Amino acid sequence: MKGRILSGMRPTGSLHIGHLSVIQNWVALQNDYECYYSIVDLHALTTAYEDRLNYPSLRREIALDWLSVGIDPQKSAVFIQSQVKEHAELHLLFSMFTPLSWLERVPTYKDQIQQLSQQGKDLGTYGFLGYPLLQAADILVYKANVVPVGEDQLPHIELSREVARRFNHLFGTVFPEPQGLVGKVPLLPGVDGRKMSKSYNNAISLAASPEEVKTRVQQMITDPARLRKDDPGHPEVCIVDKFHQIYTPEVAEVEENCRAGKVGCVACKRHLAENLEKLLRPFRERRDYWGESGRVEKVLAEGAERARVTAAETMKEVRSVMGL
Amino acid sequence: MKGRILSGMRPTGSLHIGHLSVIQNWVALQNDYECYYSIVDLHALTTAYEDRLNYPSLRREIALDWLSVGIDPQKSAVFIQSQVKEHAELHLLFSMFTPLSWLERVPTYKDQIQQLSQQGKDLGTYGFLGYPLLQAADILVYKANVVPVGEDQLPHIELSREVARRFNHLFGTVFPEPQGLVGKVPLLPGVDGRKMSKSYNNAISLAASPEEVKTRVQQMITDPARLRKDDPGHPEVCIVDKFHQIYTPEVAEVEENCRAGKVGCVACKRHLAENLEKLLRPFRERRDYWGESGRVEKVLAEGAERARVTAAETMKEVRSVMGL
Repeated sequence: MKGRILSGMRPTGSLHIGHLSVIQNWVALQNDYECYYSIVDLHALTTAYEDRLNYPSLRREIALDWLSVGIDPQKSAVFIQSQVKEHAELHLLFSMFTPLSWLERVPTYKDQIQQLSQQGKDLGTYGFLGYPLLQAADILVYKANVVPVGEDQLPHIELSREVARRFNHLFGTVFPEPQGLVGKVPLLPGVDGRKMSKSYNNAISLAASPEEVKTRVQQMITDPARLRKDDPGHPEVCIVDKFHQIYTPEVAEVEENCRAGKVGCVACKRHLAENLEKLLRPFRERRDYWGESGRVEKVLAEGAERARVTAAETMKEVRSVMGL
Repeated sequence: MKGRILSGMRPTGSLHIGHLSVIQNWVALQNDYECYYSIVDLHALTTAYEDRLNYPSLRREIALDWLSVGIDPQKSAVFIQSQVKEHAELHLLFSMFTPLSWLERVPTYKDQIQQLSQQGKDLGTYGFLGYPLLQAADILVYKANVVPVGEDQLPHIELSREVARRFNHLFGTVFPEPQGLVGKVPLLPGVDGRKMSKSYNNAISLAASPEEVKTRVQQMITDPARLRKDDPGHPEVCIVDKFHQIYTPEVAEVEENCRAGKVGCVACKRHLAENLEKLLRPFRERRDYWGESGRVEKVLAEGAERARVTAAETMKEVRSVMGL
């Protein structure tokens, strides 16, 4: 039997190529695992309950991003968290035996409260305290063994393991103890050298048109000491080179030509733009396909149905061992 | 349009006549309101998650108690809380904007933690802190305007009102502000003079057989100063009289005969036993009817279905105004 994977992302806006390696990792895992990929809109509410977000549009957008990179709805269940009520149900049942202290000591808890209170958000809510427990329910309702995560999320996986152990101890073994799978995520800067972020307007969107790709690459900051084409360049201070390192197989040659003043920044950027275009073109084609007439809506509806079937099986066992 | 009522009880064992006035009040409300009467098994879990209770049997028992007193499933939805997932769902959504401090300051919170920790129960759980919020969801998911409660529950109704106000303010008006309806509950002692409780073995069960009723009345403690039948009695120290005050219309005459030494304790108890028997006989008949071949199971299944329909309507509005 295949292992199971659960992972998710908050629908906070369209993704950029900084997110690509995470989704490519999901794509690779599809063949070896039964995968559940969840658009976690309830988690978005924990920090954004006061914002009037257009969730239907945000959810559609991120689903298209995933599908465009190669998430295959024939293989994986792609679904919206809030459309599978069993997440809320299991979260509530878990809450009965989960000590407050477990949640209060999650390392991100106090950090995030402080960080977001500086942005004027009040996170002293019951839901924000409980959101790692909702994550535990997200994972365990599918009995996922493996959870691809960022390193910062490992304490949440540890909490899920503790919750699974406590449940199994109190009521009988139902849940596996999930393992975090930390993927390598290359750190891509934005075109201006700051962190890549949609809000800084320095990101290359996964949905970027060929023109947008060109424009973004042209905006990349290069070695300021290189004034003329045949001045020797310093790739280590050049944003273009950071991208070549990831997207250009012949990066060694590119760097050599830069240092030797053989290839100028304009040509070097054109080279990168071509490589990015090669990367993004198939995404764009798949996005066009899935974006047509209700296709993504169908994927999400079928994904929710598949998720519900699995989640309902787990809940049946849960109720039974809890004596409900 | 009729107002709506939500009320509930935890399935903690069969009910006794000390509970009767509450259920009779529910029965009376059935004609003027659309009533939802819920067996709140999830609430039972907040304090009893470690106990291995037989919920299916406990839930059936309390449903039979209600039906025997006259709850009419044609009029009212009688259902099991954990079978309507919308309670968990709304509780989770409410958690997003409910300050921890609102829950921490509920007067019963610290009291109960202390009280039950003396019984060796650890209630420092996330679920126990959140249980007044689950009550708010229980009430508001049916948009109940009126909630029959005991006086000790009024702070929880106040919390429900605050949650409704905050929701309406943040997202748009969906919920009414429910009002607590405190019924008069005559305080009945147990046959030994202590608080009536199944665990003290001093209670008259709603399901008591005629023999059990007689035995219980015979066990009632009378005026210890009255040794012979024609000694003058003191009704104010007699347990039998406490029951006559509620169940015997001609109580004035009974007390006069006692004080005058005209009627002895044996005859006085027989008189009470007859009155209690008159009270309980119709309950027993209805219990027999509903207890037959799957009838109560059908009531609970249909009740859950009716509850789900109403709850789903509310959740549709909730999702819509929250932008989900």
